[in-house]
Amino acid sequence: PTTIDLAVIGGDGIGPEVVAEGLKVLDAVGVKAATTDYDLGARRWHATGETLPDSVVTELRGQDAILLGAIGDPTVPSGVLERGVLLPLRFALDHFVNLRPAKLYPGVASPLAVERVAPNGIDFVVVREGTEGPYVGNGGAVRVGTPNEIATEVSVNTRFGVERVVRDAFARAQARPRKHVTLVHKHNVLVNAGHLWRRTVDEVGQDFPDVEIGYQHVDAATIFLATDPGRFDVIVTDNLFGDIITDIAAAIAGGIGLAASGNINPTGDSPSMFEPVHGSAPDIAGQGKADPTATILSVAMLLAHLGYAEASARVERAVAADLAERGSAARSTAQVGDAIAARL
Amino acid sequence: PTTIDLAVIGGDGIGPEVVAEGLKVLDAVGVKAATTDYDLGARRWHATGETLPDSVVTELRGQDAILLGAIGDPTVPSGVLERGVLLPLRFALDHFVNLRPAKLYPGVASPLAVERVAPNGIDFVVVREGTEGPYVGNGGAVRVGTPNEIATEVSVNTRFGVERVVRDAFARAQARPRKHVTLVHKHNVLVNAGHLWRRTVDEVGQDFPDVEIGYQHVDAATIFLATDPGRFDVIVTDNLFGDIITDIAAAIAGGIGLAASGNINPTGDSPSMFEPVHGSAPDIAGQGKADPTATILSVAMLLAHLGYAEASARVERAVAADLAERGSAARSTAQVGDAIAARL
Ligand SMILES: CC(C)[C@H](C(=O)O)[C@@H](O)C(=O)O
Ligand SMILES: CC(C)[C@H](C(=O)O)[C@@H](O)C(=O)O
Repeated sequence: PTTIDLAVIGGDGIGPEVVAEGLKVLDAVGVKAATTDYDLGARRWHATGETLPDSVVTELRGQDAILLGAIGDPTVPSGVLERGVLLPLRFALDHFVNLRPAKLYPGVASPLAVERVAPNGIDFVVVREGTEGPYVGNGGAVRVGTPNEIATEVSVNTRFGVERVVRDAFARAQARPRKHVTLVHKHNVLVNAGHLWRRTVDEVGQDFPDVEIGYQHVDAATIFLATDPGRFDVIVTDNLFGDIITDIAAAIAGGIGLAASGNINPTGDSPSMFEPVHGSAPDIAGQGKADPTATILSVAMLLAHLGYAEASARVERAVAADLAERGSAARSTAQVGDAIAARL
Repeated sequence: PTTIDLAVIGGDGIGPEVVAEGLKVLDAVGVKAATTDYDLGARRWHATGETLPDSVVTELRGQDAILLGAIGDPTVPSGVLERGVLLPLRFALDHFVNLRPAKLYPGVASPLAVERVAPNGIDFVVVREGTEGPYVGNGGAVRVGTPNEIATEVSVNTRFGVERVVRDAFARAQARPRKHVTLVHKHNVLVNAGHLWRRTVDEVGQDFPDVEIGYQHVDAATIFLATDPGRFDVIVTDNLFGDIITDIAAAIAGGIGLAASGNINPTGDSPSMFEPVHGSAPDIAGQGKADPTATILSVAMLLAHLGYAEASARVERAVAADLAERGSAARSTAQVGDAIAARL
């Protein structure tokens, strides 16, 4: 599109602050966006009891993309907004690719002894399935609150759902220099789901003969993320394993303050949603202290997804340049946004 | 017992080699053991098709404890030995506490930039539930191999099962200087199981008023394991989350070459089993290259479990002293065992 119809969900806590900087950078890179704000999150729930009204979903479907800040607040019971807003958005808009790059930019400190364990840098991407697994809300509890309580959670995996995300991961790997896909699962224990994933990776892999295939159990994968993260190129994994390893990935690549993500529907049948991985950070909300870098990198992902490859690369380069020259001096949310915008 | 009736399962790969050093150290510390070897693992399966015969389980029940090396071999299909030997042992002997300490000993290299992220050291223990969760083997698949395949994995959690492991974790925390328990779960998504765990921790915690309670979602916990592991004292968590975070814990505390574990039945109704967390490492099997330290630390856990507190502490001190003076010179499996035994 020449003008992006962009839904903006600032959300809770620091969400609106970081989103403002994302929009600033979008403007600075010269891409036109017609934005519509959607009021979702803790405020709306407290005021109306609503989480994600159908009418909002219908409107969102008409947009080209969604930029989300953060949803979540300690005043709302655990699970209400996650299972009322965040996950329903992913499910309703069929965001089956949850894309999370992990790249250690020059100048950024990692908790790892990088010179020893990642001398060649860290640059991989996790393709996390976004619409299946233990996230489907299939489970229940009986005799709650009694000594005989039983609670279950069911991970649901389909060939349809696994194949489409695996195919996406292979396509991404093929477009990267190292052309390597690692499946992360736990097929020695979760045999039913694990064998489905394994077979699917082997079969889809035949359509990508130039892409190398690796496998790691999720527990072993976390060891390598700490001791040799440079070995990974594209990781494909299920919804829950992906949730866990993308947080480790963010940590080793400089912290969730820098981690961008895309909830993507690669078919284009519905708008994709881009959001920083960090949460709403209510403790620092409203103080102009939040780091908007993850949001700005999410804007770069949004641009790439919509076909603005060059603008996306420019935003990423501006962020990289800013990171390389960041000292320890504290800057406000707006100052970081201004500095990155000024480089464009 | 004045003589320990000890079942020894050397198992596959480097298992028998490291177990030999564990027994050497047990002897050196002056604790008498009457050992019985059990032949389980890849060899037995190839030769007989058997994994864990009932008769073996019956015999094991008569022992005071079990020392296991490693089970697993690439020549056996994934899942056969895990779900045929390792997990059935845990289930049959009701090893509901899977205890995994993570301690960074002086002289040991961590992949973390320790001086920056763990200036006060790393010393925590994970109490992983061992008999429930997604490990119960409850799940299935239909239309396997077709485009309509569906595979499920069911996590089963009971108040009975959660409460007993939570109680164990609180008791362990109470006996430690910092007296802190962190529940790790994902209750914002896995609401049924998550709320059972949360409620149980809150309720059991009332019986331990001097123990402080914390909570982390599993994804956030992995971030803290990389950026601030010193904050943890006792972590209690479910079987699958425990599998994952104990491998990260092992990695940051110097690698799985040093990670000990106990599959414990605290009631004493059945023998507990102690094993290094590392696997069978078939690539280096039979070469005398394996590091027996994790097995020797598992022997220290075994001694502590059976009430030999002083002998346990002596073994741990001998290991610590050896680790502190280890240079980079390669030593054989037996040389490491000899060196530690010589300190006793
Ligand atoms: C907030 C929560 C529902 C969410 C998830 O588990 O997917 C978050 O952790 C994430 O990774 O985006
Ligand atoms: C081998 C496997 C079944 C086992 C587990 O998942 O529990 C291992 O990873 C462990 O942590 O002891």
